[in-house]
Amino acid sequence: MKDNNTITFLIKAGDAKGLVSEITSFFYQRNFNILSCKQHSDTLAGKYFMRIVIDKNDLKISRKQLEDEFSQFAEKFTLEWKVNYSDQLKRVAILVSNTSHCLYHLMSKLNEGELNCEVPLIISNHPKLEYVAEQFKIPYYCLPVTKDTKPEQEQQIIDLIEKHHIDLIIMARYMQILSNNFVTRYNGKIINIHHAFLPAFEGANPYQRAYERGVKMIGATAHYATPELDKGPIIDQDVERVSHEHDPDSLKRIGKDIESIVLTRAVKAHLDDKIIVNENRTVIF
Amino acid sequence: MKDNNTITFLIKAGDAKGLVSEITSFFYQRNFNILSCKQHSDTLAGKYFMRIVIDKNDLKISRKQLEDEFSQFAEKFTLEWKVNYSDQLKRVAILVSNTSHCLYHLMSKLNEGELNCEVPLIISNHPKLEYVAEQFKIPYYCLPVTKDTKPEQEQQIIDLIEKHHIDLIIMARYMQILSNNFVTRYNGKIINIHHAFLPAFEGANPYQRAYERGVKMIGATAHYATPELDKGPIIDQDVERVSHEHDPDSLKRIGKDIESIVLTRAVKAHLDDKIIVNENRTVIF
Amino acid sequence: MKDNNTITFLIKAGDAKGLVSEITSFFYQRNFNILSCKQHSDTLAGKYFMRIVIDKNDLKISRKQLEDEFSQFAEKFTLEWKVNYSDQLKRVAILVSNTSHCLYHLMSKLNEGELNCEVPLIISNHPKLEYVAEQFKIPYYCLPVTKDTKPEQEQQIIDLIEKHHIDLIIMARYMQILSNNFVTRYNGKIINIHHAFLPAFEGANPYQRAYERGVKMIGATAHYATPELDKGPIIDQDVERVSHEHDPDSLKRIGKDIESIVLTRAVKAHLDDKIIVNENRTVIF
Amino acid sequence: MKDNNTITFLIKAGDAKGLVSEITSFFYQRNFNILSCKQHSDTLAGKYFMRIVIDKNDLKISRKQLEDEFSQFAEKFTLEWKVNYSDQLKRVAILVSNTSHCLYHLMSKLNEGELNCEVPLIISNHPKLEYVAEQFKIPYYCLPVTKDTKPEQEQQIIDLIEKHHIDLIIMARYMQILSNNFVTRYNGKIINIHHAFLPAFEGANPYQRAYERGVKMIGATAHYATPELDKGPIIDQDVERVSHEHDPDSLKRIGKDIESIVLTRAVKAHLDDKIIVNENRTVIF
Repeated sequence: MKDNNTITFLIKAGDAKGLVSEITSFFYQRNFNILSCKQHSDTLAGKYFMRIVIDKNDLKISRKQLEDEFSQFAEKFTLEWKVNYSDQLKRVAILVSNTSHCLYHLMSKLNEGELNCEVPLIISNHPKLEYVAEQFKIPYYCLPVTKDTKPEQEQQIIDLIEKHHIDLIIMARYMQILSNNFVTRYNGKIINIHHAFLPAFEGANPYQRAYERGVKMIGATAHYATPELDKGPIIDQDVERVSHEHDPDSLKRIGKDIESIVLTRAVKAHLDDKIIVNENRTVIF
Repeated sequence: MKDNNTITFLIKAGDAKGLVSEITSFFYQRNFNILSCKQHSDTLAGKYFMRIVIDKNDLKISRKQLEDEFSQFAEKFTLEWKVNYSDQLKRVAILVSNTSHCLYHLMSKLNEGELNCEVPLIISNHPKLEYVAEQFKIPYYCLPVTKDTKPEQEQQIIDLIEKHHIDLIIMARYMQILSNNFVTRYNGKIINIHHAFLPAFEGANPYQRAYERGVKMIGATAHYATPELDKGPIIDQDVERVSHEHDPDSLKRIGKDIESIVLTRAVKAHLDDKIIVNENRTVIF
Repeated sequence: MKDNNTITFLIKAGDAKGLVSEITSFFYQRNFNILSCKQHSDTLAGKYFMRIVIDKNDLKISRKQLEDEFSQFAEKFTLEWKVNYSDQLKRVAILVSNTSHCLYHLMSKLNEGELNCEVPLIISNHPKLEYVAEQFKIPYYCLPVTKDTKPEQEQQIIDLIEKHHIDLIIMARYMQILSNNFVTRYNGKIINIHHAFLPAFEGANPYQRAYERGVKMIGATAHYATPELDKGPIIDQDVERVSHEHDPDSLKRIGKDIESIVLTRAVKAHLDDKIIVNENRTVIF
Repeated sequence: MKDNNTITFLIKAGDAKGLVSEITSFFYQRNFNILSCKQHSDTLAGKYFMRIVIDKNDLKISRKQLEDEFSQFAEKFTLEWKVNYSDQLKRVAILVSNTSHCLYHLMSKLNEGELNCEVPLIISNHPKLEYVAEQFKIPYYCLPVTKDTKPEQEQQIIDLIEKHHIDLIIMARYMQILSNNFVTRYNGKIINIHHAFLPAFEGANPYQRAYERGVKMIGATAHYATPELDKGPIIDQDVERVSHEHDPDSLKRIGKDIESIVLTRAVKAHLDDKIIVNENRTVIF
C-alpha cells in the first residue's frame, strides 16, 4: 500500500479570486495529471489553503526545476508552500516513557505497511519499553532524566534527532514536558497525544480528574506540541462513553485504545501530507 | 408506553455487607415482585447505591404504610432513600429563551408518550417562543428580565413553580444565570443543558471558543444546576465530529441536535427515577 | 442563515486530465469568484465528480446565457451537469404515516431557517398527523389507501406533486411501498428513511428483527428510493449503542432520534446541492 | 490490575419472584461480601439472568463444598449456573491467518496485564505471523490446510486444544471456516471477529461488498461461533464513519482498528465472566 508515486504540494494564501484556476493550470500546462486537489477557504480569517497531488510519473524535469518554477509562480501570488515526494520516506523518532500501547499500535501499523515512514530510533527516559524496541528491531536510546539533568538530557535527544535526520517526533505517551526551546526548534514537527479531550483536563492526571468531575465520556487529543502545554493545534480527537461504574483505573484502560488510535491517525495524516496549520488550528485534507 | 404500575426506591448507603440481601428480602417478605434491582458500589468513596423497582399491583397495604415500614427498616441500616410511584406523574416546568430546538424535541417526545410527566407551563424571558407553546397548548409565561429586575423576575418564576407544584425544572437553553438562592432552593430539581462538552468551555459562547480552539468534536452536557456555573453533576453528554470546514455558525447548527438529544435523555432518566447524585457525580441506573 | 447568493454546479465526467483546470478557468475567465470547489476521482470506475460554487453577485449575464455557455463547454468534455441557484427555493413534499418524530424534526429545522426549501404540503395515508401540519400551518392531504385503491391513491399523490411543482419528496416514515412506476418517475428526487442500518434488516419490522438477532447497535439509513426496496443509493447512516436491556419497544424509541437526524441531514445535503449519485452510491461533497 | 480475589457465579433461571433475595441470602448467610450483583429479566422470554461476584477471602470452606451447597440450592430453584474463580487463569488459544492487527492488539493488552488469561499457543494455517509469536515468545503451530486435508488439520487443532487444556479459542482473523463438528464441540468457547456490522455482509469479502453497496459506516462484530456461519450470538460491535473517498483498500485499513478493539473487548468480557448466552443473543453484564 505504500505510495511512492506522488508529489504533494501544500499551499497557503490570502483568499484570492482565481487561485484554483491559476494553480491547477500551472500543473496542467506542465502536463501533470492532478490526482487530487482539495481546498479550504477560511472566510473569517481571509485565508486560503490547498493540497494538490500530482503524478510523479509525469515529472519530465528535475525536482529542483519543478520547485524553482513553482517558487517563481508562488511569489507572484504570495503563496506559502511546501512540497513532499512520497518516495522520500519521512524519518520518525518515537519518544516513550513506560506505557506501551501507543508504541505497539504505531509499530504494528508500520509493520503492516500502513505508515509511510521509517523509524530509525525510539527514545525513552525509562528502560522499561526496551523489549518492545527489540521486538521490532529498532534501536532504543534510554536517556533517564532528573530535574537537574533535564537540559543535558534534552540536548542528547536533540543530538540524536539531528544525527538521524528526523522529520517527525512522536510523543507516544512520553511523560516529560519538553522545554520551550526544544518545542520551538521543532515547531510543526512534534505530535503529542494528550490523554484527555482537550481543552478539558489539560496537564497532569486527566483520567483522575475526569473521574472526579464525573464525565460520561472520556477522550484523547493528538496535537502539535507548542510552548504552551496542551495548547497546540489539534489534529484529531476521539471519545468513548463511560459510566459511574468506571473508576480511574478503568478510565485509564479504556482510554488506551482511544489514545493509540487518535495518535496513529494524526501521525498518518501528517505522513500523508494532509495537514496545514492555520494559526492555532489545523486544516486536515 | 407510559408506565403507571411500578414503585421505585432509590437508596444510598455506606457500603455494607449483606445490604442487597436485606433490602431484597424486605420486599420479598412483603410479597413484592422485584421487577428490577440495580446496584453500584463506589468502593473508592465507600458508598453503596441501589435502585429497586417493584410491582404496584403487589401493594396490599397503603403507600403510607409501605413508606413507614421501609423508613423503619432504613433507619436500622442508615439508608438515605426516596420512593416514586409511576402513577404520580412528575410536574415539569420548562424554561426557554429564544432557540426552539430543545423545546421542540421535548414537546414531540412528550406528545408521543415517551416522557412520563406533565408540563403545566413554559417560562421564558423572551416572547419569541410563545408560538411553540401555543402549538402544544401549554401556558406560556413571558417574564422579561434586566439586570435591575432580576430578583423580582426570579421571584415570579418561584411563585409560578410553587403554584404549579413543579417537581422538575428544565433549562432548555434558558440563557439567564439563575441566582445561587434559586439553584440551592431547587437542588437536584433543575436540569440544565450546556452547549459544550464539559468541563471544556464552561460559561458563555462555547461554540465560538470551540471554533477558536480548533477542536475536532463538539458536544453538549446535561447536568443538575448547582450554584457554581456549569459545575453541577453531569447526567449525560454526547459529541459530534466536526472539521476545519465548520465556522462557529455551523458548529451552532450541528450542536443543536446534540443538545436536544442529551437534554431529553437526561430528563427521561430523571423522570424514570434512574439517577442518584453521588457528591458531584451521578449514578445512572 | 438562508443562503441566496450562490450558484452551484454539480458535474460528472470521465476522469480526464486537466479537467479541474479547464472548469475553474471557465469560471475564472468570466470573473466569477469560486467560493468552493470540491472534487472526487472514482479511480476504480474511471469517473470524476465536481461541485463548484460561485458567487451570484458576479453574474453579469443572464442565467440562460451562463447555462448556454457552460453547456457548450460541457459538450467539449462530455460532462454531465446541473446547476442550482440558491435563491430558487426547492419545493418539498413530505409523506408521513402515523409517527411524528421525523416530521417534527424536519419542521423545527425548517422553522429555524436551517433547511433551504419550502414545504407547500404534507401528504399522508392516515389522518393522525394532521394536527402537526396544522401546528405549522401546512396543508395536509389525507389520502387513505387500501390494496385495491393503491393505484388511484398514488395517482392522487402524483397529481398533488405535479400541481405543486415539487422538487423533492421526503418519505418521513411513510409506511407504504411506492410503485416502481412512481419511484422511477421521481428518480433521484425521493429520499426515504429506513429504520435500520442498511443493508442489514431491509424490509419490514427492522427493530423486531434487530432484537431477535441480538445486535449491539441499531441504526437508520437515508437513501434515494429506487424500484428495489431499500436498495437505493445511501446518503447517510448513523447508529446508537444498545444492549440486552432493550426490548423491541425500547429499540424503536431509541431509533427515533437516529432516524430523525439521519433523514434531516440527508435532506439538507440534497437541498444544499451536495450530492451526486454515482451508480448505486453517492458522492457527498 | 489482574484480579485474583473474586468468585463469580453466572446464573440462568425462569423469571421467579424472590430470586434476587434468595440468591443473595444464600451468600449473605455464608458471610460472603457481595462485591457486585447484576441481573437481567428477559420479560419477553420469561427468563432471568444473574451475575454475582463474591470475595474469595470470605471463602472459609472448600471450593468443592461451596459448589456442592450451591448446587443443592440451585436445584431447588432449577437454576442453570457456573462458577469461575479469578485465580484460575483461563487458557486461551489464538487462531490467526495472515493479518496481524488483531493478534498485536490482543498481545499488547495481555502484555500490559489487561487480559486475565494465559496464551499457551498460537495456531495458524500460514507461516506468516510466526514472527509475532516469536516477539511475544508464544509457541506457534503452523498447520497449513487444503480442501483435502481439512479434516486432518482440524483434528490437529483439536489435539493441540485438548493437550493444552484450552478454555477459550479466539479466531483473530482466522480465514478458514471451521467444521460444524468443531464449532459444536467448543460451543460457547469460540469467539470470532467478523469484519462487518452483522447481520450486514455475512460471509466473504465484506469490505468489497460494503464498498459496492456504498455504505457510510463500516463495522465489525465479535460473536460466538456457531455452526451457521456468522449467525452466532453477538458479543460486541462497533462502527466507523466512511465516505465516498474510501475505496475497498481504505475500508480494509480503517476496519482493522474496529476489528481489533471489538474482538479484544469481547474477549475481555468473556474472560471477566460477564457474558451469559440467551438463545442466540447475549447478556453482557
